[in-house]
Amino acid sequence: MIVMDNIRILLKERPVTEPELGHFMVETVEACIPKDGEILVSTIYLSVDPYMRGRMRDTDIFGKSYAPSLEIGDVIVGAVVGEVIESKDPHYKAGDIVETKLGWQTLAPISANLARKITPSLAPISTALGILGMPGLTAYHGLLDIGQARAGDCVVISAASGAVGAVAGQIAKLKGCRVLGIAGSEEKCDYIVNDLDFNAAINHRKDDIDSALTEHCQDGIDVYFDNVGGSILDTVMNHVRDGARIVICGMISEYNLTNPEVAVRPTRALLNHSARMEGFVVSDFAELMDESLAQMAKWVSSGQLKYREDIITGIENTPSAFIGLLRGDNFGKRIIQVRDNPFNDV
Amino acid sequence: MIVMDNIRILLKERPVTEPELGHFMVETVEACIPKDGEILVSTIYLSVDPYMRGRMRDTDIFGKSYAPSLEIGDVIVGAVVGEVIESKDPHYKAGDIVETKLGWQTLAPISANLARKITPSLAPISTALGILGMPGLTAYHGLLDIGQARAGDCVVISAASGAVGAVAGQIAKLKGCRVLGIAGSEEKCDYIVNDLDFNAAINHRKDDIDSALTEHCQDGIDVYFDNVGGSILDTVMNHVRDGARIVICGMISEYNLTNPEVAVRPTRALLNHSARMEGFVVSDFAELMDESLAQMAKWVSSGQLKYREDIITGIENTPSAFIGLLRGDNFGKRIIQVRDNPFNDV
Repeated sequence: MIVMDNIRILLKERPVTEPELGHFMVETVEACIPKDGEILVSTIYLSVDPYMRGRMRDTDIFGKSYAPSLEIGDVIVGAVVGEVIESKDPHYKAGDIVETKLGWQTLAPISANLARKITPSLAPISTALGILGMPGLTAYHGLLDIGQARAGDCVVISAASGAVGAVAGQIAKLKGCRVLGIAGSEEKCDYIVNDLDFNAAINHRKDDIDSALTEHCQDGIDVYFDNVGGSILDTVMNHVRDGARIVICGMISEYNLTNPEVAVRPTRALLNHSARMEGFVVSDFAELMDESLAQMAKWVSSGQLKYREDIITGIENTPSAFIGLLRGDNFGKRIIQVRDNPFNDV
Repeated sequence: MIVMDNIRILLKERPVTEPELGHFMVETVEACIPKDGEILVSTIYLSVDPYMRGRMRDTDIFGKSYAPSLEIGDVIVGAVVGEVIESKDPHYKAGDIVETKLGWQTLAPISANLARKITPSLAPISTALGILGMPGLTAYHGLLDIGQARAGDCVVISAASGAVGAVAGQIAKLKGCRVLGIAGSEEKCDYIVNDLDFNAAINHRKDDIDSALTEHCQDGIDVYFDNVGGSILDTVMNHVRDGARIVICGMISEYNLTNPEVAVRPTRALLNHSARMEGFVVSDFAELMDESLAQMAKWVSSGQLKYREDIITGIENTPSAFIGLLRGDNFGKRIIQVRDNPFNDV
């Protein structure tokens, strides 16, 4: 067995507010050898996602998260798409392409049970981290199962050009909804309206959200797919219609806070409008995933679902790419390309 | 036609914080004559309920309520049980007992469509305002349809000795749940545990709610049936379990506020626990009401559902009874007895 290097990024210090480069440490170590039931994976693409910020926290001021915290010195968690270099599991062989939870590292073994085989001929392999991966499925189940979006509904989506929001909005359009997106730049607003066919867009850095909602959702909002939380959520609650469904998918505006913000409780709006607010995580729908992924893949290959990737090269740039993601610097699904893509399919 | 008097209570001035006697006006007028399709109803019992506070508001600081506001000079809205004195509708005759939305007055016509016939032999007629009326049905549908309470669930109920809470708790027990009630006195706490068979009680005026929830709901809360809102809701949110359902039925602690309170948003708890928070009003379940009322009546007649009424005599005492209700002075369903009950069945 040849000794091979693994470049990995560890949590060096817990961020209190915004993460900084000094909170992370890059190191090169000898790659571990896979044990029985494991596969050795060489990362091609790795994913940076807002939820990772929650894993870097250990205090309980926000209550326990849906997943355990990282310890200092742990490799940052997350999904990657990689190539199987060596397999000690009968279901995999060298050369297979997998999506798995390897985290921010270039070469490491992982239990084969935690991997999912990717078919490179179906779609570019990077999509397994985006539209045909966790973010895409989050959009699908959040909109349809939690949000119960139906034809004719007025659907509002925050972080609407992001990895989840852009997909949720397009599925809503496919289902016959009227879709209004909230995004953080004119460029992003143009994109969701012109390229993704949203009915309208609000630039939350420039527009008055309250009056824009009054203008675009005159009969009120049926579904709010919320990726940002904070004051935008508070404002949207003043526009919910009877029977509205508020999908709590993320709250990126609150992830870097030291203490939870206070705001008017949403309960009166829920009571006055027989409305519902519900949180979820994509793994709640694990049993439906094969089916929903097949549907998504059809829409992608027919061109009914478009996607945009924001690819940054070099694992050493992962921390800065993640820090920027939390500020909304990305435009589309942010992915780190760690090595050459053998299919060259992006 | 004999001229008859109607004693009625009007909204004289809008309460800003707590309602006071001066906000109401009692007057005696000549009763109107029923038109075609109407019945003339003589009130026997009238209901005071917390939701009426919302009708006395006209400002939009809390957003639109699920029902329109009263105007100054309007008779206060609400349910009554009364006797039909004269009928201009083929479905009713003089002597019938009905539950209808006559409001705070002794004798007035109302559309027969807004009435429901009561069978005095089935249960005391006053129950049509409580356990076999709006509060009982609110408890039933709130707990089972919105809260989806299931055997083994840990269910927490606020205002647990009240007209809605006491019923919700008993139904939860019938369904095999573990039930913890929150109430405002030792006497009420004793009642829900000893008479209604709740598993435990918290006195919110004396006990530390957070530590009591930790003690009694060690694995977290599956269903919170909320009648009070405010800081108790905030505290409960720190104890929700994965998949929890928060039933927003009322928020009596907030009804007298001039401005909405601020608090930590419940969204992070919803997200971390894939939990749901949902508001409703009993009329959302109008189509199911016959069936659910039949089930409730069975439970009442078999003694599986107990109820307690807090009856005050004299229509002139309605405003003070209502003011006290908002303070939690009542013990059980508060009802005003306006005249003799011909069945003498309470």
